[in-house]
Amino acid sequence: MHYFNYKKNDLYCEEMLVSDLANKFATPLYVYSQATLLDHFRKIKKAFTALNPLICYSVKANSNLAILKVLVKDGSGLDIVSGGELYRAQKVVCSGKKIVYASVGKTTKEIKEAINYGILMFNVESSPELARINAIAASMHKNVKVALRVNPDVEAMTHDYITTGKKDTKFGMDIATVRNIFLNGAKYPNLKIVGIHIHIGSQITKSSPFIAAIKRVNKLIDVLRGKGIILEHLNIGGGLGIIYNKETPQTASDFAKKVIPLLKKSGLKIVLEPGRFIVGNAGALIAKTTYIKETPFKRFVIVDAAMNDLLRPSLYEAYHTILPVKKVKYKSSKLSDIVGPVCESGDFLGKARALDVGENDYIAVLGAGAYGFAMSSNYNSRPRAAEVLVNGKEARIIRKRESYKDLIQKEII
Amino acid sequence: MHYFNYKKNDLYCEEMLVSDLANKFATPLYVYSQATLLDHFRKIKKAFTALNPLICYSVKANSNLAILKVLVKDGSGLDIVSGGELYRAQKVVCSGKKIVYASVGKTTKEIKEAINYGILMFNVESSPELARINAIAASMHKNVKVALRVNPDVEAMTHDYITTGKKDTKFGMDIATVRNIFLNGAKYPNLKIVGIHIHIGSQITKSSPFIAAIKRVNKLIDVLRGKGIILEHLNIGGGLGIIYNKETPQTASDFAKKVIPLLKKSGLKIVLEPGRFIVGNAGALIAKTTYIKETPFKRFVIVDAAMNDLLRPSLYEAYHTILPVKKVKYKSSKLSDIVGPVCESGDFLGKARALDVGENDYIAVLGAGAYGFAMSSNYNSRPRAAEVLVNGKEARIIRKRESYKDLIQKEII
Repeated sequence: MHYFNYKKNDLYCEEMLVSDLANKFATPLYVYSQATLLDHFRKIKKAFTALNPLICYSVKANSNLAILKVLVKDGSGLDIVSGGELYRAQKVVCSGKKIVYASVGKTTKEIKEAINYGILMFNVESSPELARINAIAASMHKNVKVALRVNPDVEAMTHDYITTGKKDTKFGMDIATVRNIFLNGAKYPNLKIVGIHIHIGSQITKSSPFIAAIKRVNKLIDVLRGKGIILEHLNIGGGLGIIYNKETPQTASDFAKKVIPLLKKSGLKIVLEPGRFIVGNAGALIAKTTYIKETPFKRFVIVDAAMNDLLRPSLYEAYHTILPVKKVKYKSSKLSDIVGPVCESGDFLGKARALDVGENDYIAVLGAGAYGFAMSSNYNSRPRAAEVLVNGKEARIIRKRESYKDLIQKEII
Repeated sequence: MHYFNYKKNDLYCEEMLVSDLANKFATPLYVYSQATLLDHFRKIKKAFTALNPLICYSVKANSNLAILKVLVKDGSGLDIVSGGELYRAQKVVCSGKKIVYASVGKTTKEIKEAINYGILMFNVESSPELARINAIAASMHKNVKVALRVNPDVEAMTHDYITTGKKDTKFGMDIATVRNIFLNGAKYPNLKIVGIHIHIGSQITKSSPFIAAIKRVNKLIDVLRGKGIILEHLNIGGGLGIIYNKETPQTASDFAKKVIPLLKKSGLKIVLEPGRFIVGNAGALIAKTTYIKETPFKRFVIVDAAMNDLLRPSLYEAYHTILPVKKVKYKSSKLSDIVGPVCESGDFLGKARALDVGENDYIAVLGAGAYGFAMSSNYNSRPRAAEVLVNGKEARIIRKRESYKDLIQKEII
């Protein structure tokens, strides 16, 4: 579900004509729908009402301050993975009590900043990290809450690069290691080791991998309870898949129905970390066609957005639906590759698509809300795009377009 | 050849201890060797002396102003692909007469900027682009020089994403189309169509694809000469491979020996566009190990640099040599994955490497001068690294490290 729809031949984002936005703010342009954002957040909240979980939006999916503010105001907490994301959480005045912090490589500086801010807990990914946090907490005379990230060794059935719950990935710890840490918790006097965290991957469209993972940690929770170790939190991470093309992912409510009984069994306070599910379909990348290039071998729609704006097609061979912002009948019925101006063959947004557009038309790349702008770069010395947030009949800029001057601001000849 | 070498157990960049640089400027840090940069530029220049070519360094490989300045001062021209790169060329006061501009997606604004700056020529990639430049030139009452980019349909034997001379890529035009344009040059009264451009890909280690491509365009040049059409320039692009691992690429002089006879035959002024060849091995990414994580399945060296700093391993499965900055004997002889803190499995710098380092040690990722910083991003809200240029016993910062504040500078809550 999202609010990018045609009325007759024109694409709208909520009540705004996308072509008006492109004319006003220029292209390439990220356009987000606030209604879509909130709709997805509230769907998860509603689906899990029975558990009253802490929902921590995964900042890495889209970290724009305005996006974070909308979600935090609506009651969301934040799942962060770096000091930079903590800084963002501060800027939108997110209560520390609603912040969880995962990452395999938290630095000493980042750990100190997070302790100072009073985050709810660290999701700890290794024994050396546990020792480090304990030592830092001791030096700060603090007692710090942590969850241990369990690597449940399940197959998430998604792209290798975003599978994170297999035993040979860098994430989390195997169950035996986690059990041992819990049994020897006294080794870490400045830590309260009270949670278990799992996060098995991204863009997962079925419930079975989640169920398998939760069952494994439930068993561990039971074993620990038997030894008198009582936990507080079970964080099941994020990873819910969305529709990019013809996927038929589980809805939030289907997913909830399947996992709530298992989560209730754990007896713990539940934490969820949705990112893509909330923001993925809330954003579109709007571009303008620069040239239509017909070769004897192929038709290319060359646009002014590129892999530096949206890396997912190139990096993950990800599919994004691409639509004309205005439906016009041209003559061409050939399939086209939609490509950017960056000088490599890896610079494409879509391949072999039916996209009937001419020169200087606008196109919309849907499903670009998550891991879109967040992964953008200045490759080929391209200033990064502007971002606009639409709310009903209003649109406001939430990130200004970069200028040439911005490109060199930190450089010294 | 490069100037990153050990003296006893310490890695040096020219006369500077890399560990001193890392201590002083912090990590992740890009370190460049000016001697390596100039050495490679001069090697190409020397190898092609017989032709006195125009060498246009390919800005996209590494666009830092200080790097550009070093090369421009030594006589290099610039190969640009965007308005942002033209802006950089202006900042280092590169003469327009030494600038060539390629890209499949030049916008009207970019074309105007380049004409205003008085660049030597556009490398034109399609008929619609040719028409556009002609119209813009007419509106500006200018006469503009262009080369036509020929897609010679040769296999460069490199990664698909950086192969650019096959007929089904978005680059250039097939030979028949190019011949027709030359024969109908009168259609474009504001253009002087006087050059041919080829660029068949990147990181090409053999001369055979170049030879095949040059032979094809030589034939075309002969045909045109027969029709009374006399060209001025032949631009053979870049693409010379370098050593990342165990490649044995041709040297500049081997390459020159093979192609000079063919280029002489063309009778035209030669343009070269080396990028990676000049800057690739002139840069290293220095990182610090955050944790050594031993799992029952694998050993991970977790460092403070990530895919946002150096995307090549993740995007192209590219191999980079990774060395300890100080050789110390630890106990571990296990192979390690060298990974960053970014929350995806695609975030790695090297896999299954013998790298005997402990916590808080520095490592150097070699061959990071080209397409390293240029492709970096703020993914996971990570400020981008600083860049340092070493010249003998001196090191100076050429790009300041980004701060948390920089991350949100353009955002509006």
